[in-house]
Amino acid sequence: MLTTHPFDDDKLREECGVFGIWGAETASAVVALGLHALQHRGQEAAGITSWDGKSFHSHRAQGHVAGNFDRDDIIRSLAGQAAIGHVRYSTTGETALRNVQPLFAELASGGFAVAHNGNISNALKLRRELNRRGSIFQSTSDTEVIIHLVATSTYRTLLDRFIDALKQVEGAYSLVCLTSEGVIACRDPLGIRPLVMGRLGDAYIFASETVALDVVGATYIRSVEPGELIIVSERGVKSHRPFAAVRPRPCIFEHVYFSRPDSLVDGSSVYSVRKRIGAELAIENPVESDYVVPVPDSGVPAAIGYAQQSGIPFELGIIRSHYVGRTFIQPGDAVRHLGVKLKHNANSALIQGKRLVLIDDSIVRGTTSLKIVQMLRDAGAKEIHMRIASPPTRHSCFYGVDTPERAKLLAAQMNVAEMADYINADSLAFLSIDGLYRALGEDVRDEAQPQHCDACFTGDYPTRLTDHEEHEPADQLALLSERYA
Amino acid sequence: MLTTHPFDDDKLREECGVFGIWGAETASAVVALGLHALQHRGQEAAGITSWDGKSFHSHRAQGHVAGNFDRDDIIRSLAGQAAIGHVRYSTTGETALRNVQPLFAELASGGFAVAHNGNISNALKLRRELNRRGSIFQSTSDTEVIIHLVATSTYRTLLDRFIDALKQVEGAYSLVCLTSEGVIACRDPLGIRPLVMGRLGDAYIFASETVALDVVGATYIRSVEPGELIIVSERGVKSHRPFAAVRPRPCIFEHVYFSRPDSLVDGSSVYSVRKRIGAELAIENPVESDYVVPVPDSGVPAAIGYAQQSGIPFELGIIRSHYVGRTFIQPGDAVRHLGVKLKHNANSALIQGKRLVLIDDSIVRGTTSLKIVQMLRDAGAKEIHMRIASPPTRHSCFYGVDTPERAKLLAAQMNVAEMADYINADSLAFLSIDGLYRALGEDVRDEAQPQHCDACFTGDYPTRLTDHEEHEPADQLALLSERYA
Amino acid sequence: MLTTHPFDDDKLREECGVFGIWGAETASAVVALGLHALQHRGQEAAGITSWDGKSFHSHRAQGHVAGNFDRDDIIRSLAGQAAIGHVRYSTTGETALRNVQPLFAELASGGFAVAHNGNISNALKLRRELNRRGSIFQSTSDTEVIIHLVATSTYRTLLDRFIDALKQVEGAYSLVCLTSEGVIACRDPLGIRPLVMGRLGDAYIFASETVALDVVGATYIRSVEPGELIIVSERGVKSHRPFAAVRPRPCIFEHVYFSRPDSLVDGSSVYSVRKRIGAELAIENPVESDYVVPVPDSGVPAAIGYAQQSGIPFELGIIRSHYVGRTFIQPGDAVRHLGVKLKHNANSALIQGKRLVLIDDSIVRGTTSLKIVQMLRDAGAKEIHMRIASPPTRHSCFYGVDTPERAKLLAAQMNVAEMADYINADSLAFLSIDGLYRALGEDVRDEAQPQHCDACFTGDYPTRLTDHEEHEPADQLALLSERYA
Amino acid sequence: MLTTHPFDDDKLREECGVFGIWGAETASAVVALGLHALQHRGQEAAGITSWDGKSFHSHRAQGHVAGNFDRDDIIRSLAGQAAIGHVRYSTTGETALRNVQPLFAELASGGFAVAHNGNISNALKLRRELNRRGSIFQSTSDTEVIIHLVATSTYRTLLDRFIDALKQVEGAYSLVCLTSEGVIACRDPLGIRPLVMGRLGDAYIFASETVALDVVGATYIRSVEPGELIIVSERGVKSHRPFAAVRPRPCIFEHVYFSRPDSLVDGSSVYSVRKRIGAELAIENPVESDYVVPVPDSGVPAAIGYAQQSGIPFELGIIRSHYVGRTFIQPGDAVRHLGVKLKHNANSALIQGKRLVLIDDSIVRGTTSLKIVQMLRDAGAKEIHMRIASPPTRHSCFYGVDTPERAKLLAAQMNVAEMADYINADSLAFLSIDGLYRALGEDVRDEAQPQHCDACFTGDYPTRLTDHEEHEPADQLALLSERYA
Repeated sequence: MLTTHPFDDDKLREECGVFGIWGAETASAVVALGLHALQHRGQEAAGITSWDGKSFHSHRAQGHVAGNFDRDDIIRSLAGQAAIGHVRYSTTGETALRNVQPLFAELASGGFAVAHNGNISNALKLRRELNRRGSIFQSTSDTEVIIHLVATSTYRTLLDRFIDALKQVEGAYSLVCLTSEGVIACRDPLGIRPLVMGRLGDAYIFASETVALDVVGATYIRSVEPGELIIVSERGVKSHRPFAAVRPRPCIFEHVYFSRPDSLVDGSSVYSVRKRIGAELAIENPVESDYVVPVPDSGVPAAIGYAQQSGIPFELGIIRSHYVGRTFIQPGDAVRHLGVKLKHNANSALIQGKRLVLIDDSIVRGTTSLKIVQMLRDAGAKEIHMRIASPPTRHSCFYGVDTPERAKLLAAQMNVAEMADYINADSLAFLSIDGLYRALGEDVRDEAQPQHCDACFTGDYPTRLTDHEEHEPADQLALLSERYA
Repeated sequence: MLTTHPFDDDKLREECGVFGIWGAETASAVVALGLHALQHRGQEAAGITSWDGKSFHSHRAQGHVAGNFDRDDIIRSLAGQAAIGHVRYSTTGETALRNVQPLFAELASGGFAVAHNGNISNALKLRRELNRRGSIFQSTSDTEVIIHLVATSTYRTLLDRFIDALKQVEGAYSLVCLTSEGVIACRDPLGIRPLVMGRLGDAYIFASETVALDVVGATYIRSVEPGELIIVSERGVKSHRPFAAVRPRPCIFEHVYFSRPDSLVDGSSVYSVRKRIGAELAIENPVESDYVVPVPDSGVPAAIGYAQQSGIPFELGIIRSHYVGRTFIQPGDAVRHLGVKLKHNANSALIQGKRLVLIDDSIVRGTTSLKIVQMLRDAGAKEIHMRIASPPTRHSCFYGVDTPERAKLLAAQMNVAEMADYINADSLAFLSIDGLYRALGEDVRDEAQPQHCDACFTGDYPTRLTDHEEHEPADQLALLSERYA
Repeated sequence: MLTTHPFDDDKLREECGVFGIWGAETASAVVALGLHALQHRGQEAAGITSWDGKSFHSHRAQGHVAGNFDRDDIIRSLAGQAAIGHVRYSTTGETALRNVQPLFAELASGGFAVAHNGNISNALKLRRELNRRGSIFQSTSDTEVIIHLVATSTYRTLLDRFIDALKQVEGAYSLVCLTSEGVIACRDPLGIRPLVMGRLGDAYIFASETVALDVVGATYIRSVEPGELIIVSERGVKSHRPFAAVRPRPCIFEHVYFSRPDSLVDGSSVYSVRKRIGAELAIENPVESDYVVPVPDSGVPAAIGYAQQSGIPFELGIIRSHYVGRTFIQPGDAVRHLGVKLKHNANSALIQGKRLVLIDDSIVRGTTSLKIVQMLRDAGAKEIHMRIASPPTRHSCFYGVDTPERAKLLAAQMNVAEMADYINADSLAFLSIDGLYRALGEDVRDEAQPQHCDACFTGDYPTRLTDHEEHEPADQLALLSERYA
Repeated sequence: MLTTHPFDDDKLREECGVFGIWGAETASAVVALGLHALQHRGQEAAGITSWDGKSFHSHRAQGHVAGNFDRDDIIRSLAGQAAIGHVRYSTTGETALRNVQPLFAELASGGFAVAHNGNISNALKLRRELNRRGSIFQSTSDTEVIIHLVATSTYRTLLDRFIDALKQVEGAYSLVCLTSEGVIACRDPLGIRPLVMGRLGDAYIFASETVALDVVGATYIRSVEPGELIIVSERGVKSHRPFAAVRPRPCIFEHVYFSRPDSLVDGSSVYSVRKRIGAELAIENPVESDYVVPVPDSGVPAAIGYAQQSGIPFELGIIRSHYVGRTFIQPGDAVRHLGVKLKHNANSALIQGKRLVLIDDSIVRGTTSLKIVQMLRDAGAKEIHMRIASPPTRHSCFYGVDTPERAKLLAAQMNVAEMADYINADSLAFLSIDGLYRALGEDVRDEAQPQHCDACFTGDYPTRLTDHEEHEPADQLALLSERYA
């Protein structure tokens, strides 16, 4: 049976969140709280590795942080003043657990654990080479190549080996590593995925988003800079710049959807940016109507911005249930045909006979938008004008975001008029790419050297895509997965 | 270890939701969807009983509807065209399962299942009498007395026996019963708890709220009227009026907090009433400030109403995590002292240096308000003016709502000024009782014959409280529970 | 998929074991050990109820005693100096748990728990009457009628009510009850099922078999006598004789198969009786052969007796795996055709070319014997002479033993020659009924007043079989079960 | 709380059983049955890996074969006509699962799975070297070094790489490997651990014992010879002899205790050898007494042999419960002092006042013997003469058998008289080493070139013990384990 909340599945999904701490008394308990605050970045598996000065301890589990890492016995088993953690999307079965991070290896130089947000775009090529030389992989994860590159590096110190490894990989990576010599945080030269640094008493923290600092009561210091590598240890904090400098291109979609509204991403308030996006959208695409209605919860800040800019009242025309998680299964074939509204229900008494501006953050496959519009029409809405708080999503992401193949992206197949027709809206409009950059405080997108990675909108990828360019990489990975299954 | 979401615990809690259907092909699957939509009325246990023309089938479980009643094997085992279901709060252990409804008994006249929202206020007295005559109770539930009264009634027909039973009970009851002769729905003479009727194809449905009709795709017909008893069977729908007529007094708190905003309660849109409550609050208690900020999610509709009435912008100054359910436990004693913000986090970038009107639906113990205000202050808010969308909650409820003892209700101990001081707000104001009645479309509360049960605000209970008036009823019930433990 | 140990299913099965204690510090822990020693009397469910001077505590579970009642938290929750317990066969599902004993009811006079070994043969008739008068049954168990008879009795004291109840029931019952006034043990007037009394320090114990006394370190005092009712309380031990005296007829099959060889049943060593049975078998049915081989483990004592009497060497020609419990399921349809010998395997090196006397305790359906003989032939045995340590089992038991319907008993369908042919043995012989009585120390079966219940061999039932004689009792019980399902 | 069956813990324990098949339709189902028959060789974890012509499939689990590998879904997921499996002792936790075999690696040449019975005695040394060159270990298992040696071998074909790897390892290994090119079985040059070959239709099977062939209905062909390597593939069966020939020294303890009595070990019937051992024991150490009583079940065949030789009757003086597995935990501290006889109970009625010859297979720590003797004395035995069916166990095993450190072996600390005193027996005697060789058909132990590995009795180890001789190998392994914990 299929899932009953089709709406969730029609989003791009951030694939990971990372968190690390050095110098706190119950490091793993802090990591558990931090991961909980990052749960929206990966809901299917979580793991923590700690170092107690003598030994490394790991626990990895499928499912939410809650239910796995709020157990005293587990937290106690993860002893020590340093720990790192990871949340991710993942599949089921014994094998899958091997892909849950942090990945850990006992190297000749000592234990080495790594938590990775991003995607190595030449991982398959590197894997084949390492395999040929006798390295045995435990997982199908792209992250594992980093560990084997470190293990087989001919440099002498762990730091040099790690830098040697990173210089061979392409793609996006925000890494938090745990070794007996300290916690190492590193962001790829383009800074595609976010990573911030904070302080909790004497301890230092690295996290994907500032909300994880808030939740554990830590103070935000700054973002780890693109291309920066920071080591925190008993000898203090040390910053390295091992890569040639390039203009950074952090992911623009973090502002549109991935990050929580109460986070700062590269110094900007996500909530404020989303409200400005809504305001730009109102300026670019005004429409006469009675209410501005968000698709909850992701469309809410942009809808508030749209309402304030346009003067049209903001109203909750759709009510979201608190009880629909990812696990609910629709019981019984016979109820399939029922208008199942388990996740979202129209506020009929409100919208009856009204003209609505409906705000959502993006359209991926379009299946959700289609159903939402139909639900509002069934509930009596007179006109539905859909406004999307980002440009059309036309290209897949290869940097750690779960996107459908291009062929399934609605905007890759249709123009805006066709899309409006398809989702059955009275009108449909997207924010322009320049409007999006304006909401971020830029005048315009710098076509020569874009300020962000916006490849999902523009197809302008900032790195080589080695595995993708060699033929049939998906097949090869599928083969690997199958062999491990 | 304590729970980490103190905020949830500081609410009055509806104790039950009921749902029944007669005449649908996969009745139990429809009931499962309906219960899912009523999950906010009882999150700790759920049950369904079905009748397939020959046999009754039951499944009852602790936990959410999802995870228990979305399994094909369970739904298939609940065969038949008629079924009723129940969600409730409950405790743990084998014994507790006996209290999960629907309760079922094999009477001499055939099977009889009952799902009850409300509370029988002379249940202990009746139980003692029945016990003395040889009736053996399976549960500690007040609902079970109804079954034994039916079983031992000297009337001949099941309907007469059921009415005979109801005439002996006092208190609040919205009942949905399943028998081999039909589904019976009944609301007590005062109509304290809600109950609505709908239609899905040829099938008839009864449910606590209209949202459950929406979710299964059914059409709303009308409320079951106070004192009305409706039987749906193969012979059609038949309404009875077995009780002497009295002026109804439906629970006013359903509009304030219990019901979902997309439900109609006794014909009124809950969302609209809550917005009008916010508007009345703005009229009665205006204050100069920068933003209107709701405590999410229950304070949102009133905050929108307040913002629209006052012209002050509505903003999300507090962000709510989607991942905090009732089960999350804070890991590690050592992190207790951290400012744990797992459920609610301040949107610091927004509220820094601002004056806020903070809207919540009610104050029960005050512990939540205290922490929310502190969190906003820590995040830099300049002024915090708390406005509550109901009058002070000063009295316990004896009609199926989980309230603390009076001694723990903040408003029973302090006046408004003291409360403002306690929660550390710059100002605090509650809606007046007449303001609440105005939001519901009345001119004023009718002191002689109040239009609603508002005992939690006024102490004016509409029925006798037999068990409560006899000494130490809590002790007696505790004793019962203990014996069964 | 079918079970892989067909051999187990071809036995009569004792349906229950009971254990009770008054006056021990951790009564429930002693009960858990005692039940563990009685596990062979009921492997599918177990329960314990304790009384701590104020409250009753119960835990009942499906599965073995180990895994359920060896957990500290559960034993701690079963507080008090008095407790009773029960092991039984049972079916699966929520409903089934209601049938797991001890059954407990809160009567007007206080809590009353009962554990029952046996079967009430007029239970359905009594149930119908009680139901008509308003009693509501929680289970489909025959035992529950006793509780309702006590609850509705018009006598004044609990003891009088209990005796009043017992006088209305027919059939077999060894009962251990727990009340706030003491532990009550009682055996039906014929003493069909066993029950013994022991002492552990100051505490008194009742148990189905003496092995349970051994395991907890208690001393055996004596059997509870047929028709005797004993109350143990703070006021000491008191014996009652509420019934008219009749000649006892304890079950003869306890000696043949049900009881453990290290138990004493009504004063006789089960091991010694089984050895004498083997010796009688050798006298009645001698055969020339190389080895005496038991079907392990139930055939071992009789085989030792046969070997010692005949002078033919005792050898392990069949080896039994320790790892086949009731839960093993044969994996994969495709291996069905393989000669699956998971439970028993032939000791081929030994039996190759040899003539064997094969000893088993009984033949029920014959399916096991057929397979064992075939397995020994496949392993190279030259001749197989099967000798059965009891007379042919020709009749069903209605006193608490799980027997197939008569139509499925091999000996009810065939004479001995046909049976030999069916199981493909070179010869087959059963012990005579008088041989069995001789092994028990009698000269001969007293046809006028048999010394035992031997109805399974003779069809001579010692009580009325009210439910069985009224038409279709099985159908009625099936109907009840279905309604509860 | 401690385990309640102290008796089990006082045995040497075989650490593994292996099984492999090539060419059967549902290979994994056959492996599951085979592993079930080998369960006594390793009860704590089991695994199966299959190859379906395209992909490898693995399932590994803690616990018994039953409950894990009798599930249709799991067997179906292990598709293909070739599969290998393993049972073992292991510890708990996520990490431990990594040590459960078969171990699997995706080598550059394809998938490679290995199941190992035995122990590599230079594994730590090899591991350090491999680690230094960049190999990353997944487990703490000695078996994994074989895989890395294959992966990093510079030979070209898989077979050459495998032989290259084996030539570097010391110790005991009976291996069954699964590759896309066939199933490979191999026994170390000394043949320390057993391995047999059989046939099931067109399929070939390898297994630790012949009982696994019996149970799946296969025919026994022969033992894999010491130093032999056999490949079974589509191209047929091919035998290799990669090692220099040495005189084999198979483990003598397989005959004493490890193997099942219905197995053939290197061509000899285990049951017959054990009976001859009992006879030799009777000849060497006769004693006047009433009964020969085995400690069940391991002492039974030797006791039968002793009884037949001596003419003293064989009797079951101790009864073993079927329901004590490894998981039973004694409930409640307060019952610790009770004479807990959950596993073994004295048959008091039999032994009262009698002189007993008590037969057990070996004495390890002596704790069990002490308790058994005491239990028999408490039950009234007049004299207890203990006879042990092997020489005193004085040395640890380093070849895949779980032995306590030497300091805990009773026979390493005391002479026989002291031991008799310690266990409180009236007399105690062990079989001589030459008596043991005689029971195996030899005239005498060949001191120059012993026919078996009997190091546990003699301290005469047939291989180098590299890791043991380098200092503190246990500490190093402990350290490894800890790092992985």
